[in-house]
Amino acid sequence: MSVVPESHRDLLERPLFAHLATIRPDGLPQVNPMWFSWDGEFLYFTNTTVRHKYRNVTTNPQVAVSINDPDQPYRYLEVRGVVERIDPDPTGAFFLTLADRYALTLDGPPADAEHRVVYLVRPTSTSHQ
Amino acid sequence: MSVVPESHRDLLERPLFAHLATIRPDGLPQVNPMWFSWDGEFLYFTNTTVRHKYRNVTTNPQVAVSINDPDQPYRYLEVRGVVERIDPDPTGAFFLTLADRYALTLDGPPADAEHRVVYLVRPTSTSHQ
Repeated sequence: MSVVPESHRDLLERPLFAHLATIRPDGLPQVNPMWFSWDGEFLYFTNTTVRHKYRNVTTNPQVAVSINDPDQPYRYLEVRGVVERIDPDPTGAFFLTLADRYALTLDGPPADAEHRVVYLVRPTSTSHQ
Repeated sequence: MSVVPESHRDLLERPLFAHLATIRPDGLPQVNPMWFSWDGEFLYFTNTTVRHKYRNVTTNPQVAVSINDPDQPYRYLEVRGVVERIDPDPTGAFFLTLADRYALTLDGPPADAEHRVVYLVRPTSTSHQ
């Protein structure tokens, strides 16, 4: 059983932007919009090992995401969770899967493919409106 | 001089939703969409003293917000800052000012006006794309 309420599951299924909040090693919050996907168990994000966010989630795996509905802006879902796994994505395959989900046509893998990783976030609690 | 880049100032001037990340007393991040306004010095948010967020920012005033451009979704601004002041808003006057900014017509002050407060967030740094 997922902690994600049935009423707001569509916000994870649609290619919306997730504002991903992480905590920096100095304890300050960081947040920015990210591509993601959802398979009913994990939220998946693409990132690289040379980004601040990688340093954040490897120091503190606790994260939270906020997604609102562009068609009904007062409708939103917050998911709190933990980065349970970080998988390498050295060919950029997962990046390309996400690009396709977001209808972005690319010529090939990203230039930084060798540093690409996938964050698997397990939701632990949610809030919504 | 504001730390907000001229190129992305419009994202603070338009009535967009700011995904406000705070840190809970247990150290976990929390994030959700919020109304806000901006006067060139502070970001202003309405909240109440009975919300989790109030407990968060009175424990740890460090916050971050993420705002993306609905017309160009890869364009965004992240503002990190500190809740420098919390002003009472017992008549809900600031709440009504924000409602007007967001084109929401209300019959009068919110039912929870007596608990309403205004967070004044001073930006300390930004990132953008």
